[in-house]
Amino acid sequence: MPVKAEQKILRIFRVKVTDKPGHFGRIATSLGDLKANIGEIAIVRQGPDYLIRDISLSFIDESHLQTCAEAMGKIEGVQMESIFDPVQLVHEGGKIAVRSRVALNTIADLEKIYTPGVAQICKLIHHENSLSRRYTSISNTVAVVTNGSAILGLGNIGAVAGMPVMEGKAVLYEQLVGISAVPILIESRDVNLVVQTVKNIATTFGAIHIEDIAAPECFEVEERLQNELNIPVLHDDQHATAVVVLAGLLTITHRMGLDLASCKVGIIGLGAAGAGIAQLLQAYGVKSVLGTDLRKEALDRLSLMGGVATDLDGIMSRSDIVVATTGVPGLIKSSMVKKGQVILALSNPDPEIAPDLAIKSGASFAADGRTINNALAFPGLFRGALKANATKFTNKMKLAAAFAIAGQTKMDNLVPSILDREVHEHVSNAVAIAAS
Amino acid sequence: MPVKAEQKILRIFRVKVTDKPGHFGRIATSLGDLKANIGEIAIVRQGPDYLIRDISLSFIDESHLQTCAEAMGKIEGVQMESIFDPVQLVHEGGKIAVRSRVALNTIADLEKIYTPGVAQICKLIHHENSLSRRYTSISNTVAVVTNGSAILGLGNIGAVAGMPVMEGKAVLYEQLVGISAVPILIESRDVNLVVQTVKNIATTFGAIHIEDIAAPECFEVEERLQNELNIPVLHDDQHATAVVVLAGLLTITHRMGLDLASCKVGIIGLGAAGAGIAQLLQAYGVKSVLGTDLRKEALDRLSLMGGVATDLDGIMSRSDIVVATTGVPGLIKSSMVKKGQVILALSNPDPEIAPDLAIKSGASFAADGRTINNALAFPGLFRGALKANATKFTNKMKLAAAFAIAGQTKMDNLVPSILDREVHEHVSNAVAIAAS
Repeated sequence: MPVKAEQKILRIFRVKVTDKPGHFGRIATSLGDLKANIGEIAIVRQGPDYLIRDISLSFIDESHLQTCAEAMGKIEGVQMESIFDPVQLVHEGGKIAVRSRVALNTIADLEKIYTPGVAQICKLIHHENSLSRRYTSISNTVAVVTNGSAILGLGNIGAVAGMPVMEGKAVLYEQLVGISAVPILIESRDVNLVVQTVKNIATTFGAIHIEDIAAPECFEVEERLQNELNIPVLHDDQHATAVVVLAGLLTITHRMGLDLASCKVGIIGLGAAGAGIAQLLQAYGVKSVLGTDLRKEALDRLSLMGGVATDLDGIMSRSDIVVATTGVPGLIKSSMVKKGQVILALSNPDPEIAPDLAIKSGASFAADGRTINNALAFPGLFRGALKANATKFTNKMKLAAAFAIAGQTKMDNLVPSILDREVHEHVSNAVAIAAS
Repeated sequence: MPVKAEQKILRIFRVKVTDKPGHFGRIATSLGDLKANIGEIAIVRQGPDYLIRDISLSFIDESHLQTCAEAMGKIEGVQMESIFDPVQLVHEGGKIAVRSRVALNTIADLEKIYTPGVAQICKLIHHENSLSRRYTSISNTVAVVTNGSAILGLGNIGAVAGMPVMEGKAVLYEQLVGISAVPILIESRDVNLVVQTVKNIATTFGAIHIEDIAAPECFEVEERLQNELNIPVLHDDQHATAVVVLAGLLTITHRMGLDLASCKVGIIGLGAAGAGIAQLLQAYGVKSVLGTDLRKEALDRLSLMGGVATDLDGIMSRSDIVVATTGVPGLIKSSMVKKGQVILALSNPDPEIAPDLAIKSGASFAADGRTINNALAFPGLFRGALKANATKFTNKMKLAAAFAIAGQTKMDNLVPSILDREVHEHVSNAVAIAAS
């Protein structure tokens, strides 16, 4: 696994150290001398004359980690017990669980939750189907469906290997808007099979979130599911990303005193994200959307939407705003940047052009994918749609989400913090209103 | 909804009452005079000179409830605020939720749970698939699959109307053995479609629990899924019920000094439960299993297993032990009972013969379905199978579960309490050992 300079390696050193004033200062100094960054320090156990401490550290690369670990073991009064990876720790055993919302302590509880009491609730729903919204978890549950064909920047690694991402989405859903998200893994790239399988289990859920399915299959999967189901279906990578990009562009153009609708916007890369962005910008009213992609069918799709297909140079020389989602690091050269251009180079982990280089090359504003995170949009989009009992996601709902995000952006930020629960509440409410 | 005399109607009366010593005594006396049973009493709010109280009450029938509600409103100093159904309350909003097992408070948390940290976990699993057991929730998650064709005693009411039962199972899983259970609703009675759909999503789960699918489809669904998947598959209604019946019979015959294997056991009704019982008793070593059913294919299945098909009278006159699972209340008449017979009449809510009538008619032991609850078996069966990383449920595992349950039965009970967490732990351990 190649490690990049800016990608810090995190480790926890568990050490047994002499419990003596001044001793820990020497350890910290040694680590500092070796340029290891010290984070949290916890006491795990206290002995008669020693302490077990967990020291969180970050390193530049594997060899830096090795050097520090060896040096640590040589300090007098320090014994290295073990080295943990805090990222692995947090994923251990999985990040989600299905929990009961009701107590089960007595036989009376059991008789209400299960037989015989449950029969009366089943009968109510059988008699009046819409009561399932009231008496089951269905209307608060979203299926997070993937076939693992486009996991993060990792590509087609399969659905099981993508499960940590699906669980991550479920953590965000629960923590940010209280939705129950259930990962559904389908190990197939056959569009018919994916669509049919989701349709067959769809009554279990209040909405369908499509995640990390590769283009162009993702377009057909989403379109067919939305046409054939009467619950909201959304491909996160297309539309939630687009909502956050639009929110960011609204903020930037507002600050610059520009009218976004009159700007020429160039989209480099028309995969799931690029296509979604092109579509939403047009829905917002941007009159001139240029786009480019190496795949002919992607260009055809853009033309169908009313966009103009061109090439990389064409976009760079003609656009006021450039949005790149190609997955190709360094694609945009310094010489291509037009003076005053706004550049969002969104590929992760390495952008098409680093923001500081873009600025140095003349751009008036530049950002990368660390800022534009679709987790700002998807929780509120789904929460709002479920609240409104919507049957699909309309452009109006997506635009409302983008306005709500832009409206919540503080000071000189491009977008608000993902962890700000209030932002998600505002997005939910805006989406619910737009849905009705 | 017809209400039976023994099926109490539960309600909570929320009343505003004068806060004065002796006043509540008068209310309680009035309710007692009207034969309303008082359960828990809670104070919801306290005013300057009044209290809001929630009084839990049970009534014989709807008209009894009406009478009491009216009488209550007429007591001086009592104002009826509202009447709740506590069963409906407990199901409100659904009984389960997907929750995060990790905290999401800081950007550092987000970077570990989600991007960029999650990529390293995806890569680990992509490289070595079995690490999904360690770093995802898959190996602790069971799909509870139904098509709603045989929900409780209610029949083919559809999967959505059956959802409260699936959620009830999920509550039991989480509360009793810490398993995450995910309901999966498939609105179809087409065996191919059900099997194919479950296969398509199977890598999401550590095991498949089939629930409330009608006979005879249930047999084919279970068999095909178990043959085609390398994770454990179990139809609860067949095998978990059988495990609890075997446990009960082991206890009874032990107390009576009988050898179960040498007893003639008659099974009345060869649907899912009856067939599972017949099969497990033979696996235990019962040499003579008689069975009857109105459906020819059910009798054929019994013959294939080595059982003897006969009729109701044949079973009642020849069996030492009778197990009935027909769904037909009162099917076994007093005159049919043979002196000294053991009778388990398991249909819910109304048995084939009431236990007290069976005893009066000469049976040496009788019980109904309220005692034999498959929730004693399924949590431990799945917990044990997942712990052992088993690929299927064998007879050995089911027998081990039955022995563990019988071994935990105390005093003169037929089986232990479902709520005794220790019992489930013993069952899990026994199943895990039998699996390896």
